[in-house]
Amino acid sequence: MAKSSKENTYEKIILASIELFNEQGERYVTTNHIVAHLGISPGNLYYYFQNKEEIIEEIFKRYEKELLEFIQGEAPEVEGYAALRYVFKIFDIMWRYRFIFTDLSVLLEKNERLSQMQRDYTNNKITPLINNYLDALIENGVIHMTPIDLKVFKNNFWLLVRYWFDYDKMARGELKQDSKVRGSIQVLGLLKPYLNEEDKLIFDEVYLRLVQGVDL
Amino acid sequence: MAKSSKENTYEKIILASIELFNEQGERYVTTNHIVAHLGISPGNLYYYFQNKEEIIEEIFKRYEKELLEFIQGEAPEVEGYAALRYVFKIFDIMWRYRFIFTDLSVLLEKNERLSQMQRDYTNNKITPLINNYLDALIENGVIHMTPIDLKVFKNNFWLLVRYWFDYDKMARGELKQDSKVRGSIQVLGLLKPYLNEEDKLIFDEVYLRLVQGVDL
Repeated sequence: MAKSSKENTYEKIILASIELFNEQGERYVTTNHIVAHLGISPGNLYYYFQNKEEIIEEIFKRYEKELLEFIQGEAPEVEGYAALRYVFKIFDIMWRYRFIFTDLSVLLEKNERLSQMQRDYTNNKITPLINNYLDALIENGVIHMTPIDLKVFKNNFWLLVRYWFDYDKMARGELKQDSKVRGSIQVLGLLKPYLNEEDKLIFDEVYLRLVQGVDL
Repeated sequence: MAKSSKENTYEKIILASIELFNEQGERYVTTNHIVAHLGISPGNLYYYFQNKEEIIEEIFKRYEKELLEFIQGEAPEVEGYAALRYVFKIFDIMWRYRFIFTDLSVLLEKNERLSQMQRDYTNNKITPLINNYLDALIENGVIHMTPIDLKVFKNNFWLLVRYWFDYDKMARGELKQDSKVRGSIQVLGLLKPYLNEEDKLIFDEVYLRLVQGVDL
């Protein structure tokens, strides 16, 4: 009973932090805000977390685990609606932790341990997986890229995924749910020139259906 | 004589601020640092600028003017070395004000007037120019894009130009001069799929020559 209540508080702190960080930006939220939001005592929070950085690290681990599990679990689709669903799912995971992407440079700059953790994750876990997928798609003739195209594409791809939410927030003044589907279209649009002619047409069809409901 | 010395101090403050912001990041540099760096009194700085925000606004104006003059003055090249030189020139202007691009979200978030100024500039001055150029290149058959391609391309283009220095700094731990040429290659790589077959080959040739000296 006591243990379950403790776990409960730990979990509530994490979830409230994610919510507040997403809504207000991590750098405007202190542990005092989190405590006030939950109606618990500061001592209660400090029982579980020494400081805000520990909360942020735990949130990063959850985000990284969730994303990795999805990418490991499903080979990517690159055609039509299946492609859109696949990329959308990735943006959907990122959306739930979107403060990470609108605050990342600031977050990493002030926390060397987090920065190292994030570099290890990107370089050793996510990047090799994505690279393998791309190589397989090229080998199977689904996408057509020269080695030069591939090198250039990778940077543009990572940059787009990493900064989409920040870019969209700046361009529109605020982040709305439709940012996920618009970001997905941008990623597929980056890939489109390398598809077969037939799949290019499918991309345009998907695009035209989507833009009925989405202001691009 | 007195006036010339005054102008001199004003100019020195601006140039020292750009230097310190670029080297250390705007948010770590106070007016005290600027004053100490120049060996002048705080009162001397406050004679010209009420606060750091005024210095930043003046620097923004200079950056915006310089970039606009270049883009107004020269029609863009999209083929081979001429294209590289054109895009490189833009990154070179941005490089001299690179703190803007590694700190932009933070800078704009805390200064509504600057944010408005920057939006007006982008929406009313730079974007229409770039759009006109792209439209002309499509009309002249230099690049081949459907209206859908063009919409998607524009966002990916702006995002890349806007975040390249921040991305590169995060990926490599620090910003070096070669970031300018690598950023230029990324922009041209984004455009490459829409070129004529012959111009695509020229891009690859330019790329291969460049990568002899540049670690991509």
